[in-house]
Amino acid sequence: MINDDILDRLATQVIELPSWAFGNSGTRFKVFAQAGVPRNPREKIADAAKVNELTGLAPKVALQIPWDKVDDYASLRSYAEDFGVELGTVNSNTFQDDDYKFGSLTHWDPRIRQKAIDHHFDCIDVMDATGSRDLKIWLADGTNYPGQDDIRARQDRLADSLQQIYARIGDDQRLVLEYKFFEPAFYHMDVPDWGTAYTQVLALGDKAHVCLDTGHHAPGTNIEFIVAQLLRLGRLGSFDFNSRFYADDDLIVGSADPFQLFRILYEVVRGDGFGPDSGVAFMLDQCHNIEKKIPGQIRSVLNVQEMTARALLVDRDALATAQAAGDVLGAHEIFNDAFYTDVRPALADWREKRGLPANPMKAYAASGYQEQIEADRVGGEQAGWGA
Amino acid sequence: MINDDILDRLATQVIELPSWAFGNSGTRFKVFAQAGVPRNPREKIADAAKVNELTGLAPKVALQIPWDKVDDYASLRSYAEDFGVELGTVNSNTFQDDDYKFGSLTHWDPRIRQKAIDHHFDCIDVMDATGSRDLKIWLADGTNYPGQDDIRARQDRLADSLQQIYARIGDDQRLVLEYKFFEPAFYHMDVPDWGTAYTQVLALGDKAHVCLDTGHHAPGTNIEFIVAQLLRLGRLGSFDFNSRFYADDDLIVGSADPFQLFRILYEVVRGDGFGPDSGVAFMLDQCHNIEKKIPGQIRSVLNVQEMTARALLVDRDALATAQAAGDVLGAHEIFNDAFYTDVRPALADWREKRGLPANPMKAYAASGYQEQIEADRVGGEQAGWGA
Amino acid sequence: MINDDILDRLATQVIELPSWAFGNSGTRFKVFAQAGVPRNPREKIADAAKVNELTGLAPKVALQIPWDKVDDYASLRSYAEDFGVELGTVNSNTFQDDDYKFGSLTHWDPRIRQKAIDHHFDCIDVMDATGSRDLKIWLADGTNYPGQDDIRARQDRLADSLQQIYARIGDDQRLVLEYKFFEPAFYHMDVPDWGTAYTQVLALGDKAHVCLDTGHHAPGTNIEFIVAQLLRLGRLGSFDFNSRFYADDDLIVGSADPFQLFRILYEVVRGDGFGPDSGVAFMLDQCHNIEKKIPGQIRSVLNVQEMTARALLVDRDALATAQAAGDVLGAHEIFNDAFYTDVRPALADWREKRGLPANPMKAYAASGYQEQIEADRVGGEQAGWGA
Amino acid sequence: MINDDILDRLATQVIELPSWAFGNSGTRFKVFAQAGVPRNPREKIADAAKVNELTGLAPKVALQIPWDKVDDYASLRSYAEDFGVELGTVNSNTFQDDDYKFGSLTHWDPRIRQKAIDHHFDCIDVMDATGSRDLKIWLADGTNYPGQDDIRARQDRLADSLQQIYARIGDDQRLVLEYKFFEPAFYHMDVPDWGTAYTQVLALGDKAHVCLDTGHHAPGTNIEFIVAQLLRLGRLGSFDFNSRFYADDDLIVGSADPFQLFRILYEVVRGDGFGPDSGVAFMLDQCHNIEKKIPGQIRSVLNVQEMTARALLVDRDALATAQAAGDVLGAHEIFNDAFYTDVRPALADWREKRGLPANPMKAYAASGYQEQIEADRVGGEQAGWGA
Repeated sequence: MINDDILDRLATQVIELPSWAFGNSGTRFKVFAQAGVPRNPREKIADAAKVNELTGLAPKVALQIPWDKVDDYASLRSYAEDFGVELGTVNSNTFQDDDYKFGSLTHWDPRIRQKAIDHHFDCIDVMDATGSRDLKIWLADGTNYPGQDDIRARQDRLADSLQQIYARIGDDQRLVLEYKFFEPAFYHMDVPDWGTAYTQVLALGDKAHVCLDTGHHAPGTNIEFIVAQLLRLGRLGSFDFNSRFYADDDLIVGSADPFQLFRILYEVVRGDGFGPDSGVAFMLDQCHNIEKKIPGQIRSVLNVQEMTARALLVDRDALATAQAAGDVLGAHEIFNDAFYTDVRPALADWREKRGLPANPMKAYAASGYQEQIEADRVGGEQAGWGA
Repeated sequence: MINDDILDRLATQVIELPSWAFGNSGTRFKVFAQAGVPRNPREKIADAAKVNELTGLAPKVALQIPWDKVDDYASLRSYAEDFGVELGTVNSNTFQDDDYKFGSLTHWDPRIRQKAIDHHFDCIDVMDATGSRDLKIWLADGTNYPGQDDIRARQDRLADSLQQIYARIGDDQRLVLEYKFFEPAFYHMDVPDWGTAYTQVLALGDKAHVCLDTGHHAPGTNIEFIVAQLLRLGRLGSFDFNSRFYADDDLIVGSADPFQLFRILYEVVRGDGFGPDSGVAFMLDQCHNIEKKIPGQIRSVLNVQEMTARALLVDRDALATAQAAGDVLGAHEIFNDAFYTDVRPALADWREKRGLPANPMKAYAASGYQEQIEADRVGGEQAGWGA
Repeated sequence: MINDDILDRLATQVIELPSWAFGNSGTRFKVFAQAGVPRNPREKIADAAKVNELTGLAPKVALQIPWDKVDDYASLRSYAEDFGVELGTVNSNTFQDDDYKFGSLTHWDPRIRQKAIDHHFDCIDVMDATGSRDLKIWLADGTNYPGQDDIRARQDRLADSLQQIYARIGDDQRLVLEYKFFEPAFYHMDVPDWGTAYTQVLALGDKAHVCLDTGHHAPGTNIEFIVAQLLRLGRLGSFDFNSRFYADDDLIVGSADPFQLFRILYEVVRGDGFGPDSGVAFMLDQCHNIEKKIPGQIRSVLNVQEMTARALLVDRDALATAQAAGDVLGAHEIFNDAFYTDVRPALADWREKRGLPANPMKAYAASGYQEQIEADRVGGEQAGWGA
Repeated sequence: MINDDILDRLATQVIELPSWAFGNSGTRFKVFAQAGVPRNPREKIADAAKVNELTGLAPKVALQIPWDKVDDYASLRSYAEDFGVELGTVNSNTFQDDDYKFGSLTHWDPRIRQKAIDHHFDCIDVMDATGSRDLKIWLADGTNYPGQDDIRARQDRLADSLQQIYARIGDDQRLVLEYKFFEPAFYHMDVPDWGTAYTQVLALGDKAHVCLDTGHHAPGTNIEFIVAQLLRLGRLGSFDFNSRFYADDDLIVGSADPFQLFRILYEVVRGDGFGPDSGVAFMLDQCHNIEKKIPGQIRSVLNVQEMTARALLVDRDALATAQAAGDVLGAHEIFNDAFYTDVRPALADWREKRGLPANPMKAYAASGYQEQIEADRVGGEQAGWGA
């Protein structure tokens, strides 16, 4: 089953938690507030650190600017390090300002486009202070009605804006461009698919990569194919993990289609996208609208770990033999044998050997942390979308 | 082309405007505020009346409770009548209260379920005061994760709750149940499809009907088939018109797929769903996130009128002959001839003969109304989702 | 884990194999012929019996008329019984005759409609001879172009045709109507969704039920909801199991989304749809275009059994407690615990205790049966779509 | 409305007809044979020439090898020229040979891969003889089950195969690679999206382009965005026009969503993809399963012409002004004004001035051609998929 080699490889796994996962979130219909939700970046970091403390899987916290804007990033960094976590990817945000109603990096108005570019310069300044490697750009840009704007001119303006931002990226930094099939623009998104993200980053240079958010595809899309392709092309920069049934539901990774997550992680392993030298960042990008935030994140990182273990379990030699023989059922069965293996006991052992709780969900419930933050974090404004 | 008989039939067309279309709206990412947006139900009614004044198509305003809660509905009714419009369908709202986090009419907790039932009783009281015929129920109820709740028990609780509400419906009133494929619940919706809505209203009685929102279906669904089927079964209560490219985008009706709107309206005409005696209410249910609200509504009612005109233009005798001969191309061409006919000049004439502006969009722009409300409606809280 | 009670319940499981699964099949682009494929109904039955011999799960064979037409059904029945299997559901076929180009039970031409009705009378005669309980009707009827035919009139003609067929159904027989979202008609299908199938069978009487084919839904449809609803309404007649990634792919059940199969089977168990008294028939309806037919069927019935075992494993008391507490993550985890349990070793034991091979796939490979049929079945015409 | 400049531009329009559109076709369920269907390439060319004779739009016929294999291509070319048409794109076919069960240019077996490469060499030989510019490659390659083969290795083998074929492409010839989202492979297609096709042709060189088949995308995909993007990248080689409601339905272009066709053609015009110097080939790739073949093709080319006229009608100056002002409704209305204009009378005039029938559909019906071919083409084997 799970041998020491696999356990050792699993020990290198790093999953970045998004600071915004700990704040309130919701749909356009309603945001349900939760007790104990953080009111500032430090409280978000504390919560993220709790997830790491119980799982050993999440030593990085991704930031969102301006949501996580502080006066002193060096101090925030020390604060995080005291909690045993690093500050990770810096995510820009050009979707919550009235100026961006018709776009940001693609806008026809040079003033607004420059404002959006300047925001990314600010983000790079933050990265310099936090030691973050990656600037991740997700754009809400697009149009709602046919004819509303010139699709192609927007693409050209995007290329120009990205060029300016890329020129500021440091030698050890990367620009990672995320694509999304739909929403919040309804007729067209300016970066709707991996092809667009890839052609845009290809025009920039070697430090530009693509971010694949598992929830950002058309129904029926074979996501693991895209993973394999981007790894083949050397441009898979990072994952935004989550899962979804229909749209950008941002549910717990692996909760909607665990077999899909297995297939994705298999292609990651197959394409040398797993491990410290791969350059592929694993991040969560999820909402916990109705479930509690911290155990929601714990469940999520455990799901990624469990499925990575299954992906590592695939007997690739046997698989290659069956594939080369055209043995469809045999190859499929070898592949599925790994998926149907119950890796949970072995991972509980793995945790215990590392001084971690065998069952992090129960350990969290028993820790009193939830009760503590619910008691302490009263007053002030809860963090949330836009906060 | 468009003969007098068609023009006379068009003169009977009534489209209800949703009061909330005049307030601010947006996606979960951002609500963009607009100048001049109403701050209370009266200002919404004034705006709706403006749409009617310029188009002659929209003499009814649908309300949302609690968004349009007032102390004195009789006074609100008089106010509307002074503006030449009636108060129409009353829409309940069980999706913006913390209590409804896990459901309303389907909730496992009897207290919350009763609260939701009571809310509908209140809505019926409002209907009694406003003279509204229809109580429209759209439920946000559902679950986000497999296992979260018992799907079937929720369906039984829904049936019981609806029974209690239906028992209060007056002799001249109707209960109209709306279905929605997805969102805001992500794993399952309690009323996801027309089949569920139909079986629920069938269990209630003759005064219970189904509301078909054109944006609430799975990709690829043939909506006009459902229209034909519900008319055949005698249970099509109303339309919520809007359009969408991918999800519940709530764009201007007819803006995404005009040919689909044509096919839908053809089945309405074919199935005797058009006209004052049909019992089918035509409503808009849209958002104008980035375009101006009032001209957005004007454009919408014009789109419905233009497409209804095209649907009435279909030469049904010739079509029947071609269909009965198995003449696929001939029948398709007869059908499309109506769609490709430019009905706009004839409708401009129709308007002028009725003392309406030939071009309502231009007439609105020239009216000074927009400037007036932008100047007047300063201070106070703008209406919007939840307001 | 899997206790004796569960094992006993599993022992009652009956899965019908479709006779056509053993013949050649393909896409519209190509049918790949396989060696050893049956050339007549008896050879199909022999193959189906082999699946049952190795798994103990498949003691019934569903027939397709006219594909499985023989002169003497009593003799065919004895032949099957000698092999230890029964003849099961009789499937009509109105999609492979030139007369049905524009429809069958919905056709505007009374002659063709009568021909289609008569075909179903013939099928009932076959059922009388074979002792089959169920007449399953799947219709390819629909149109390719808007305007091609009158959608509503077709629905009325369908109701009339079904009424005539239903009148012939014996006291111990059932009519089961299958729905399909799309294909082979492209613009509209006459029975596209469960709502249509349900309203049609409701008009017939208590012996009419709905067949749910797991591949016949729009993308994103929550199929287990429909299962729960049809069981609640008392009209779930049978399953056609298969799986698919995009369309009517007819792949091995459980191969595309095993977690979905688990959720479906959980609702079956939850809604008392499992077991000899439930009246719900479990059938496969699959193609094995590129993999070998017999092991393809073996893999399929094992998948159904394994997932049924997981569905039976769900701790429903604990689940109900978590659900009633609004414990989203807890309920989800209890639900998933069953899914992630590796039931394969327990089922291998179960088989061995019953004198079945622990590993039916390996047992088949070692049996020499495949080599035998490939050697024997030379000459004659292979069975296949239309054969 | 339609001025002379637009009419002159329309006069340059060339639409290639696929030879296979005149043969029998169907779904996997049934191929309905039609009277008068061609039995060889010459009869297909005669039918295509008839379409051109009546519309003036279709002076080229695309070939499929081996379906249109003849001994003497020079003679076939002369034959076509006598009928006033040229031989156009050569389409390879690697999906109807048993050897290609598991792939062609991506196959693991070097023998089969070489066979597929050699087939393309043969196609280039045909092109040399016929004077065709484009070799179009659509691959049915893919897998049906997760694990069946190595997705990434297949991509590498594809790159290698294409490199070998490209090396044979003449200076005035082009390789055009088509992508398809799904089918006939169900789990993964080796060229599923424009991004994959683009990265593959980018690796080849300047004479390699992408073919966009309008039916080959996931539901909800914004196809006109891809058109704009491929034109921007200089790699849009050709269109395969058709339309569809759900899958690869191959219906008459413009029949399912005419507004989408308008938006696509607008982006073609906007991106300088229209006209003799653009390098973008307009082809049809459709089936006429239940409607007659020749009028089906006439209707199709008329649809393309009518929608191109509408696309040319867009007042681009006014549109640019409205767009730059953020006038969402104004821009949308300018865009739609062109769509809703009835261009049919002006095009009838245009035809009459060129000595063409005002109404080609009626002219065909009156021509006696259909009766003639139905009488003449008796005996022999009808052309069809695979024939």
